[in-house]
Amino acid sequence: MRLAIDRQRFVDRMQEQAEIGGLDGERGLDRLTLSDADREARDWFRDRMRDAGLDVRVDEMGNMFGRRAGADPEAGTVLLGSHLDSQPRGGIYDGPLGVLAALEFVETLEDEGITTERPVEIVNWTNEEGSRFQPAMMSSGVWAGTLSLAEAYETTDRDGIRFVDELERIGYRGDVPAEPQYDYDSYLELHIEQGPRLEEAGDDVGVVTGIVGFQWGEITFEGQANHSGTTPMDHRRDALVGAADVITQVRRIPGTLGERTVGTTGVIEAEPGSINIVPGEVRFTVGFRDPDDDTVVEAVDRVKREAAAAAEREGLEWSYEQRMAVESVDFAERCIDAVQSAADDRGYASQRLVSGAGHDATHVASVCDAAMVFSVSEGGKSHSPKEYTSWDDCYAAADTLANAALDLAGVAAER
Amino acid sequence: MRLAIDRQRFVDRMQEQAEIGGLDGERGLDRLTLSDADREARDWFRDRMRDAGLDVRVDEMGNMFGRRAGADPEAGTVLLGSHLDSQPRGGIYDGPLGVLAALEFVETLEDEGITTERPVEIVNWTNEEGSRFQPAMMSSGVWAGTLSLAEAYETTDRDGIRFVDELERIGYRGDVPAEPQYDYDSYLELHIEQGPRLEEAGDDVGVVTGIVGFQWGEITFEGQANHSGTTPMDHRRDALVGAADVITQVRRIPGTLGERTVGTTGVIEAEPGSINIVPGEVRFTVGFRDPDDDTVVEAVDRVKREAAAAAEREGLEWSYEQRMAVESVDFAERCIDAVQSAADDRGYASQRLVSGAGHDATHVASVCDAAMVFSVSEGGKSHSPKEYTSWDDCYAAADTLANAALDLAGVAAER
Repeated sequence: MRLAIDRQRFVDRMQEQAEIGGLDGERGLDRLTLSDADREARDWFRDRMRDAGLDVRVDEMGNMFGRRAGADPEAGTVLLGSHLDSQPRGGIYDGPLGVLAALEFVETLEDEGITTERPVEIVNWTNEEGSRFQPAMMSSGVWAGTLSLAEAYETTDRDGIRFVDELERIGYRGDVPAEPQYDYDSYLELHIEQGPRLEEAGDDVGVVTGIVGFQWGEITFEGQANHSGTTPMDHRRDALVGAADVITQVRRIPGTLGERTVGTTGVIEAEPGSINIVPGEVRFTVGFRDPDDDTVVEAVDRVKREAAAAAEREGLEWSYEQRMAVESVDFAERCIDAVQSAADDRGYASQRLVSGAGHDATHVASVCDAAMVFSVSEGGKSHSPKEYTSWDDCYAAADTLANAALDLAGVAAER
Repeated sequence: MRLAIDRQRFVDRMQEQAEIGGLDGERGLDRLTLSDADREARDWFRDRMRDAGLDVRVDEMGNMFGRRAGADPEAGTVLLGSHLDSQPRGGIYDGPLGVLAALEFVETLEDEGITTERPVEIVNWTNEEGSRFQPAMMSSGVWAGTLSLAEAYETTDRDGIRFVDELERIGYRGDVPAEPQYDYDSYLELHIEQGPRLEEAGDDVGVVTGIVGFQWGEITFEGQANHSGTTPMDHRRDALVGAADVITQVRRIPGTLGERTVGTTGVIEAEPGSINIVPGEVRFTVGFRDPDDDTVVEAVDRVKREAAAAAEREGLEWSYEQRMAVESVDFAERCIDAVQSAADDRGYASQRLVSGAGHDATHVASVCDAAMVFSVSEGGKSHSPKEYTSWDDCYAAADTLANAALDLAGVAAER
């Protein structure tokens, strides 16, 4: 059977959530994980899950689950979801689209009086973004057993505030252990593509076959802070010049490695940060991603060699500290097929693609079979108030998700 | 006659002031202008001036003057001084050495019962460093009529706090107009070299013949903030890559222009500053200095062309905003000669050199004849807790200053 979700309700819900932590005068979100805005979005989502008749539970990491029983209580659960947190100046679709599409699925089951064979759960994962507390995808990682609960709790933000204290403060440190409470059959996650490929091909939805691997690290250069007017050029050990050399190479390395390789420096801090002083210490991040894990390792090796060469040129000390490394993921064929069949059946033009971004599905795929649905991201923009997906494209992706999920959950009875 | 300053008193005073705003466990200062530490240093200096029998006045910019009458009340005044404020992590010599050497001069006159022909004044100029409020050398600039009092008052620090409000808060907004209250004959300023030339030549003191010109500006690149994993390299407009290109050229341009040219990027800020986002906007400073003003202009022209080229490569918008431009200064021969004669007479090995740093003397030289004395800076280090000048070298420079000042002020009577 085909499931017809309620487009108007779904769009209304997307607009409601976009008001919580919304940017002034811009269509975007400032809803950092465990902020007051995150609490407000969570309260709103909890109420919506209860209204939909779901059995709500919150685990020790603040992950929020809403469970709907199936005809076969012994059957593995089908899990759907994403995250409600945002970057400091993020868009309104990234994350929330997948959470509210999951909600729309169970509400439609309720409307239609459908009992699925398998239990169905929807989830809002805590701290997917990793913007305030590193690493990203923290709480799906703890849930899947990849990250340690104790370490996650002790993580601090830039102001030295601990994750666990903020979780407690906003009232979302739950009692349920942060680990699978049931046997899970499969996981589907809808997310915006955050890249240009669907739009450029004119496709409606993306059938995601896996996720690239990546490695994030921080390079520190130490030179000599000194007066910018009185220190001759041949006496300088300028840490920022070393950083500039490496950042130029971070731009170049991907083009020497692979078609899908990307490399980025997103954060840079130069000390002491005075117009009149040669920078004595500079720290900056480097990150590389590729579907092939060996290529990521090679990119990191190359950037380290570039750092060593830059340090030699400028007389600096240098170090590289790995912040996070995640291997690439290949999704399960049966879940990919469920998404592909749903898209084909609903008449959506689609392409298969590998996600360039990490998602909670990265971790969940180690617990059960998984796949993802991508919606179009206009101009490939995300993590920005310019992020945009038309309601038509949101609907197409949510419709695909719902029908793929119904396929996996099976229909036991309908009204 | 030769004047013999009190070495022990002078060293004690240097150590006393170094306790005010001193860094924890390091031999350095955090005494930003108009901070509580600056107030404390000012109170201490005011008391020392009163103890020395000086007539103390504070002007509208917080500049502190201590005046000692001469035999000829109509004669032009000889002014000596420097500044007590520091960089956020500065050394203990930069600035204070020149202020306390001036104090030591008048105390020695008092000890010796010397009446000079000319009146003598010592001064502590407000906000020489320009680290908290730009521009640097702000209050000697207002005093000399180069900068506007109204604009200086409205200047804000990074927290948006106005200069005038902080001046008021620490109790150093004086009533005396910030302009010359007397006819000034000459100005001498002792300062650490902040460069390696004296030490490398094995000289004791520097006879400063002028000050390089410089221009400070800020370059802004605007690109497109976007997800670092999903945005292919050929779709990026990375503002930080543009900045890295230019910073590399800031390092290179001086070597193509002149032996004394220097170029520096001291401050860089990348937005939004997330490990996971391609930087959409980057602002960074560029500064060039040279004894020849045309060379500074050429350096700035070149860096603008580099910015345009980097913007073209990366698809960025760019702008250059001039923050400060100061022309080079040639000091007066008679003042240079007074310093040279004092150094020679006391048996100090010296060299003539052009200051690579701006000093309050830059502005004062537009009011009266001026020159400077440099002390050795070990390793050329300054604006850092590693800044160091031995007490022998401090003494040699203060001794030279005192005897040059006595030469300019003339002896009318002694006990």
